[in-house]
Amino acid sequence: MAAADIHHRTADFRALYSRVLADLKAFIGTKNDVVMFAASGTGAMEAAVSNLTSPGDKVLVVTAGKFGERWQALAKAYGCNIDLVSAEYGETVPIEAIEAKLTPDVRVLYTQATESSTGVRHDIQAMAALLKRKAPETLFVVDAITGLGTTDIDVDGWGIDVIIGGSQKAVMIPPGLAYCAVSARAWTHMETAKSPRFYFDLRKEHKAGSKGESAFTPAIALIAALGAALEFIRKMGGGDIAAGRNLLIENAEVCAEMTREAALGLKLQLFAPKAPSAAVTAILAPEGMDSTVIVKAFRHEFGAVISNGQGEMQGKLFRMAHLGYFDYLDTIGTIAALEQILAAVQRPRHTEFGWGVRAAQTVYARVSAARRAGAAGG
Amino acid sequence: MAAADIHHRTADFRALYSRVLADLKAFIGTKNDVVMFAASGTGAMEAAVSNLTSPGDKVLVVTAGKFGERWQALAKAYGCNIDLVSAEYGETVPIEAIEAKLTPDVRVLYTQATESSTGVRHDIQAMAALLKRKAPETLFVVDAITGLGTTDIDVDGWGIDVIIGGSQKAVMIPPGLAYCAVSARAWTHMETAKSPRFYFDLRKEHKAGSKGESAFTPAIALIAALGAALEFIRKMGGGDIAAGRNLLIENAEVCAEMTREAALGLKLQLFAPKAPSAAVTAILAPEGMDSTVIVKAFRHEFGAVISNGQGEMQGKLFRMAHLGYFDYLDTIGTIAALEQILAAVQRPRHTEFGWGVRAAQTVYARVSAARRAGAAGG
Repeated sequence: MAAADIHHRTADFRALYSRVLADLKAFIGTKNDVVMFAASGTGAMEAAVSNLTSPGDKVLVVTAGKFGERWQALAKAYGCNIDLVSAEYGETVPIEAIEAKLTPDVRVLYTQATESSTGVRHDIQAMAALLKRKAPETLFVVDAITGLGTTDIDVDGWGIDVIIGGSQKAVMIPPGLAYCAVSARAWTHMETAKSPRFYFDLRKEHKAGSKGESAFTPAIALIAALGAALEFIRKMGGGDIAAGRNLLIENAEVCAEMTREAALGLKLQLFAPKAPSAAVTAILAPEGMDSTVIVKAFRHEFGAVISNGQGEMQGKLFRMAHLGYFDYLDTIGTIAALEQILAAVQRPRHTEFGWGVRAAQTVYARVSAARRAGAAGG
Repeated sequence: MAAADIHHRTADFRALYSRVLADLKAFIGTKNDVVMFAASGTGAMEAAVSNLTSPGDKVLVVTAGKFGERWQALAKAYGCNIDLVSAEYGETVPIEAIEAKLTPDVRVLYTQATESSTGVRHDIQAMAALLKRKAPETLFVVDAITGLGTTDIDVDGWGIDVIIGGSQKAVMIPPGLAYCAVSARAWTHMETAKSPRFYFDLRKEHKAGSKGESAFTPAIALIAALGAALEFIRKMGGGDIAAGRNLLIENAEVCAEMTREAALGLKLQLFAPKAPSAAVTAILAPEGMDSTVIVKAFRHEFGAVISNGQGEMQGKLFRMAHLGYFDYLDTIGTIAALEQILAAVQRPRHTEFGWGVRAAQTVYARVSAARRAGAAGG
């Protein structure tokens, strides 16, 4: 990032910006054009509300956590007529519950691919199929800020009209960039949507992007870092960004499963056992223990950042991420640290050293053997 | 910036963020609270429209260039009832013209401290006095993205309700952060303003900031860089950020005057001779020459980034900045490069080597002698 002192109205910047936008298409896995903002991910979420709706428009929000509630708050801020399909924290929303509320006049359905406040994965594919069947005119908007690079998503095949990503998750650079891929029919819908927008005006940014420019001063250093991260993913994939992204997804899935099995091995409860995401695993603190103790011990003793629960979940659970750079070594180390923390604070001790790590090792060995068999078979 | 890998929901980040917000108050020179966004400067401009107005509200936009026109576009996007006081590019708006259009029912007056598309400085102090006299209820919003650190502005003394800055100008870090200081009565006005806002919701961000947090994922790397830049300014000022900022202003003023005199020495015309800003100097290309030629020669031959005119001014003028890191050495070097470029492309040559540099040297020697006399007198 430190090398990125190029000015933004130059051919150098235009070449960089055009390449990053093209590489993001490959990373997201879509033919739709990508638009980028200097903002955190919420900025692109706001764009997906202010550009696609008019006050009074009927929208459906599928929510099972804090980020789903952000869709609700955004739709409320823009005066949408909101219908809510929600599940308890830790659960996903059953597709039947969505079907029951879905009518053809719903302008947009908003949801997450993975709800990182609870560690749940939503069934985006089933939602997409439902929309095609029951409300083919409804636009489908997916916040995949933690979903991209951790979850298989067939954006164009399933028909996702707007899919949203950020910079700090699977693409592994500091926060401050948001981007989204927008379908042809979403561009058309925008022409009649009447909510006010300026900084997050998708069409204005799209027009600038087609010339290799941003509508407003871009976060140049972050864009250069994003370019480098996408180049790294391309190299991982042997010259193919999509292949590199698939390796990231595979890695996240293995690390997540290792973590889940380790938690169970340590007699801990998963917060979202039924539909766990590969982006983040939420684990309940042991009975009678505040999860803040665990989060602080991770930080102070092991220099590891583990997240606490958000809002009313604070103190009840802790969350371990599997995005981007997190790999086998990090995962094993984190699980071993968790064993140390439990041993130090849990009275009486419910577990012994090794119960978590062993469970994780077993997962890895199984996956690894299957990979070798696959490679030998192929 | 590379060192900034701290997580944003930690005590370390809260300490950093609180310090940066406090230091920004000192830098801006206000007792009003400062709010920051992960966005380019336009994001904070949008906040000053969406948070302070309701559709149909009467606002006055004082404009004399591309950034003034941005206020107009923003106010239009939010359905304001806009009255415009404008001047030709290169001119500033006479205070009498503003007085003629100012009525007490104007909710907000929007303008720039310095209009960097033309190099003009507006008389913010006179506008503030006019508002106090003729429309005391009207809020005064000043885009000082290029004005802060280049221009004396007494935010609280004059009564500026919202003053806006960015990260890439006088505070000398990469773009991607916008901030503004908000007066007590502006906070009150916000309670009744009805335009939609979410990501740029000032009150939400203010509440989070008071706890050392940001409402949405912050651009951590940029915030750490901003913290370091403000520390640098504090050291410049012998432990006092305001004193450091005053040195930056003094530096910009000297460099700007050196540049203006050099341009005149080289028989070039200033685009904004009557009310030049110290942030940027706009110089007309010589008769019959496209300014793009000059901008490209600066870039390719001297590795210097000089800006072209924006929009319809492209090709007609070029702009030299005096913000932040630009100092005596840069200014002299840039002027000497301009002499080389003119010598290479201007036929017949109107000037000789040294005419620009000598004029700049004369300015510097005069200022420097006055400083020495001042120091000896004090």
